[in-house]
Amino acid sequence: MLVVMQTDATQTDIDRVCGAIKEMGYQAVPMPGGQRTAIGLVGNDGRVDDSQISALPGVAQVIHVSKPYKQVSREWRPESTIVQIAPGVRVGGSDVVVIAGPCSVESEQQIVTAARAVRAAGATALRGGAFKPRSSPYAFQGLGKHGLELLALARRETGLPVVTEAMDEAGANLVAEYADCIQIGARNMQNYSLLKAVGRLNKPVLLKRGMAATINDLLLSAEYILAEGNGQVVLCERGVRSFDSAARNMFDLNAIPIVHKLSHLPIIADPSHGTGLREKVTPMARAAVAAGADGVIVEVHPNPDRALSDGAQSLFPDQFAKLVNELRLIARAIDRAVAPSPGTAPIEVG
Amino acid sequence: MLVVMQTDATQTDIDRVCGAIKEMGYQAVPMPGGQRTAIGLVGNDGRVDDSQISALPGVAQVIHVSKPYKQVSREWRPESTIVQIAPGVRVGGSDVVVIAGPCSVESEQQIVTAARAVRAAGATALRGGAFKPRSSPYAFQGLGKHGLELLALARRETGLPVVTEAMDEAGANLVAEYADCIQIGARNMQNYSLLKAVGRLNKPVLLKRGMAATINDLLLSAEYILAEGNGQVVLCERGVRSFDSAARNMFDLNAIPIVHKLSHLPIIADPSHGTGLREKVTPMARAAVAAGADGVIVEVHPNPDRALSDGAQSLFPDQFAKLVNELRLIARAIDRAVAPSPGTAPIEVG
Amino acid sequence: MLVVMQTDATQTDIDRVCGAIKEMGYQAVPMPGGQRTAIGLVGNDGRVDDSQISALPGVAQVIHVSKPYKQVSREWRPESTIVQIAPGVRVGGSDVVVIAGPCSVESEQQIVTAARAVRAAGATALRGGAFKPRSSPYAFQGLGKHGLELLALARRETGLPVVTEAMDEAGANLVAEYADCIQIGARNMQNYSLLKAVGRLNKPVLLKRGMAATINDLLLSAEYILAEGNGQVVLCERGVRSFDSAARNMFDLNAIPIVHKLSHLPIIADPSHGTGLREKVTPMARAAVAAGADGVIVEVHPNPDRALSDGAQSLFPDQFAKLVNELRLIARAIDRAVAPSPGTAPIEVG
Amino acid sequence: MLVVMQTDATQTDIDRVCGAIKEMGYQAVPMPGGQRTAIGLVGNDGRVDDSQISALPGVAQVIHVSKPYKQVSREWRPESTIVQIAPGVRVGGSDVVVIAGPCSVESEQQIVTAARAVRAAGATALRGGAFKPRSSPYAFQGLGKHGLELLALARRETGLPVVTEAMDEAGANLVAEYADCIQIGARNMQNYSLLKAVGRLNKPVLLKRGMAATINDLLLSAEYILAEGNGQVVLCERGVRSFDSAARNMFDLNAIPIVHKLSHLPIIADPSHGTGLREKVTPMARAAVAAGADGVIVEVHPNPDRALSDGAQSLFPDQFAKLVNELRLIARAIDRAVAPSPGTAPIEVG
Repeated sequence: MLVVMQTDATQTDIDRVCGAIKEMGYQAVPMPGGQRTAIGLVGNDGRVDDSQISALPGVAQVIHVSKPYKQVSREWRPESTIVQIAPGVRVGGSDVVVIAGPCSVESEQQIVTAARAVRAAGATALRGGAFKPRSSPYAFQGLGKHGLELLALARRETGLPVVTEAMDEAGANLVAEYADCIQIGARNMQNYSLLKAVGRLNKPVLLKRGMAATINDLLLSAEYILAEGNGQVVLCERGVRSFDSAARNMFDLNAIPIVHKLSHLPIIADPSHGTGLREKVTPMARAAVAAGADGVIVEVHPNPDRALSDGAQSLFPDQFAKLVNELRLIARAIDRAVAPSPGTAPIEVG
Repeated sequence: MLVVMQTDATQTDIDRVCGAIKEMGYQAVPMPGGQRTAIGLVGNDGRVDDSQISALPGVAQVIHVSKPYKQVSREWRPESTIVQIAPGVRVGGSDVVVIAGPCSVESEQQIVTAARAVRAAGATALRGGAFKPRSSPYAFQGLGKHGLELLALARRETGLPVVTEAMDEAGANLVAEYADCIQIGARNMQNYSLLKAVGRLNKPVLLKRGMAATINDLLLSAEYILAEGNGQVVLCERGVRSFDSAARNMFDLNAIPIVHKLSHLPIIADPSHGTGLREKVTPMARAAVAAGADGVIVEVHPNPDRALSDGAQSLFPDQFAKLVNELRLIARAIDRAVAPSPGTAPIEVG
Repeated sequence: MLVVMQTDATQTDIDRVCGAIKEMGYQAVPMPGGQRTAIGLVGNDGRVDDSQISALPGVAQVIHVSKPYKQVSREWRPESTIVQIAPGVRVGGSDVVVIAGPCSVESEQQIVTAARAVRAAGATALRGGAFKPRSSPYAFQGLGKHGLELLALARRETGLPVVTEAMDEAGANLVAEYADCIQIGARNMQNYSLLKAVGRLNKPVLLKRGMAATINDLLLSAEYILAEGNGQVVLCERGVRSFDSAARNMFDLNAIPIVHKLSHLPIIADPSHGTGLREKVTPMARAAVAAGADGVIVEVHPNPDRALSDGAQSLFPDQFAKLVNELRLIARAIDRAVAPSPGTAPIEVG
Repeated sequence: MLVVMQTDATQTDIDRVCGAIKEMGYQAVPMPGGQRTAIGLVGNDGRVDDSQISALPGVAQVIHVSKPYKQVSREWRPESTIVQIAPGVRVGGSDVVVIAGPCSVESEQQIVTAARAVRAAGATALRGGAFKPRSSPYAFQGLGKHGLELLALARRETGLPVVTEAMDEAGANLVAEYADCIQIGARNMQNYSLLKAVGRLNKPVLLKRGMAATINDLLLSAEYILAEGNGQVVLCERGVRSFDSAARNMFDLNAIPIVHKLSHLPIIADPSHGTGLREKVTPMARAAVAAGADGVIVEVHPNPDRALSDGAQSLFPDQFAKLVNELRLIARAIDRAVAPSPGTAPIEVG
């Protein structure tokens, strides 16, 4: 930790900061400069709480050199974590997973048709919302528990493990009962009560980046889950807010190599929400894999024109099948492979 | 609603959109242009769900003319709502309320001292966190229920009504039991389960704008509360994320007149979180009142250098007292007045 | 300067950085930590060029403690600069200036009528564009030199000094000939050739903040002008890009106290471009003065409905007159005063 | 164009807008709704100037259906433009160009060594700055005309065409004399005087996206160049400002398919400035090609540790050689190919 003093800080101010650092059990190293003095804090083993320092007179700024998170960092665990969301379906290894399905579960026929279509095209897992966070209280909010039952049915029909969102603790318990991986949506990325709740469950968690969350915020939210004992966390880049309305979100693919450098957790990308535009999903899914994503999660609807939510960003099944083929080639170009659908042999490409 | 067609849309595409509009019970008015055709939807009484339209072939964009919210809008209720958070303490009328207190409740001595200090300086209500949403799981998370008991004690000592945050449904029930106004923090602005829960309580709610929430998003989140039957909602601008790290947040004071135009709900401003810097709190609090805010919420700590959270943005009691005096002059300049502390006579200024 | 090493940096990496620092003539102070080593650079008299350091193996980050600018900083010059744009019209003292006029000069009648109206309402200076930077090449680009002649005519008629924009070196020379203050617009804030050109002229410069410029960037651009020898620079906050389309820009009033802390240069605010909405101009102009702005620059058009540019954000003359009265009261509340129009006595308020 | 009226607009307001539309020579189609009336403008052949409409009483918003640009749009020219920057070096066809070289030209030895290295690794063109826009007036500003002479020398030595930046009209004329393609940097994207100047030259232009420019803004700036008669424009995504300091910029790869949809102009990507971090350049260059970019422009320095600018984001020559090989595989996966270096045969991959 480095404490930067104001240019008009007095020697008394500097001494007071050094005293407070020593009181906390660390060593203080003042470094006088032409414009101002900075004071290094030496001897810490992780990030130091600066609340006793930052408000002292004469302090201009406190700069942290240590990261604020621990268990999610590569420094804590150098080897990459592999999260198994179902037998044979692992996220974070050399395989690239493809999670696909409709935005919302709408009916038995819809979800089973969708599951079969994405299975046939090569998906590794099924997505579909039973609990839907919608900006408007008057929009379709999902089928709830019945939606979870239909997802479980679609899993029995296709063998695809199920990823679906929970919005509160009660919902998380239900999702854990029916599904294979609990998704925490962007709007709840800093709902710490919910993060703690899923941290106490023994289920993989897919944690989506919030709409204005820095990568640091995302890792800190994951830390909440690990701190409760659940290390099976997959991160997800899904686009952030920006000044440009040309797309629904700005898809920050650079987050992928940045997370891989800072953390041992796997990270996938969601080009459907990341762009909000059907015809941009394919190039951005390709880009995500080329950037090193451990997977993609894509909205596919058997009949997007009739979807109850997000139809305009859902791929048609044949578009999705073509995409999976392209992803296989891209993955191979960087010495990876798209994961085979559960129960099938690896795909030969080229 | 206006459906803008792609330039290469065919007559069949246009007819299909017109057909879908008619199927929904509205009238379709095609407007051919030099570059492209647009199709107006006529006859709606509020915002139309576009999910059946936006995914149709040839559709470039759907533009909504109606607002997506209803009960929060000025069109629904032209006169301004006044929220009474305690007898005599009303937000949204001609008075400007000043809510003040420490970031967190730390001890009986701290909260009672703080409450007395802000009461003496002219505050209208007391703030202080018992449940603290912290980015890091290892940071001080608040005293919980015991903090609420101490807030209730400080209220008995000073007569100041209490505003404090809830982070989940269980916490909201507790806060409703002990406090006068339930705060929903920025990180939970789109925690719809929590919004619905406080919508079912009969307590005023202070809803803070999320870090990347548009004003439209903020109003939609308020709509969740009103839709459950609770109309006592006060909105709060507290700064949003920006590209400039010169301050912790970008304080969007223009949100105040914009909200006043779009909605009947009162809106206050939080210059402490809005700036994150003690010495910017005073000018920005003044600016908020000059911009027409119905109140300000300000962090004041009896001893900011020792605060367990956010010390660097807390005012010292004497700074706060000086601020309240300045706010009285600013309020008078725009024909308003700072609300008197509960149980005191109106203040004469000038 | 602090060099933060990667956690896996070797002792060789650390030694190499220390060596490079010493080679540059400074002292290196390594500070080993639990996670990583940081190396302080001691003995510098201003910001050090880090290009020889930041690319060395094992370096994670270089953190500058010194500011990158010099002459614009309060450390360079503690007392506030007062820029005189005409005899008796000074920006940066206790008076708050009000610069007003149409977006563009359109005709003799329009600019003279506007100048008389804003003079009558209490403006201190006249604004009006002769060279207009427009996003579209097909939009009205201004009257050019003829516009400057009309501005000079309006000055003769009213006594108001003239502020108008230049877009390139040739234009700056012309503006310097006809007007009292050369405006550099937001789009040209980092047009360094133009900044150097106006730095060589002996005329006050009004430098507007770029659409995504940090305050640091703004001060560095001002430094370009001072470095060429022209110290008469007034800064201007005019709103930045944000994710919310509720207003044309996000008006960052916190920039005002931040600039006042970091720099001795005066700063004014432009609520017309800062909001882009006529009915928000008045509350935001009031807020700017309450926040401590040294002036405001406001668009006023004798007939906004017929303005060739930016009509929707221009005030009507009577709205402007009412605003000036409110600004007088706000200024008085913080012990300042709105500057009188040139040639008139100070206004008594209250 | 759609004119949305305020909910409290009177019939007189509506009639006035309809009258103004007719006065402009178009047809007005009022569409009454439950909340408000909207008025369609019919009969326009391109974007209509709304300045006479948007400021009328009762108008809430004007929504444009037509694009504000013309010649850059796919509607104006459906087939993709191919810009030839040198004989055999074409941008915008099926080949993907790789432009590489140091940030700045520093010396004859440096630029010739760099040019040979990138040529050997498979680059198609050489980049290197002679005129450098630097945030600080005290940073290295480039070698100027001598830098251009060294670039011309490096071209003679390697056969690589040269892309280099101009910062003003005089510089553009010089660059046009020595180089093959004139780069307009991000900071000058809205320097309209410069855009017009390069529009009058008969040289290809590489136009970089501004730091807070929307895609719409970028296309409008290109329109300035085309409107002056120069259609040889290559666009470039180079990252935009964001709230996350994890990288220097947010690299908006979704801009690539969006531009390809809206415009016939080619677009390349700059992962060096887009990320600002050496180790992110490779994954992001791969992602750019996977997203459909017509090329990449990458900083490579023979000795990044000694670079006078941007060393921390420059690739080492061997990293660059490995990258080009990966790009060949990615390009092939989407049925494209990396362009061969000038004077060499196409590369076989696989």
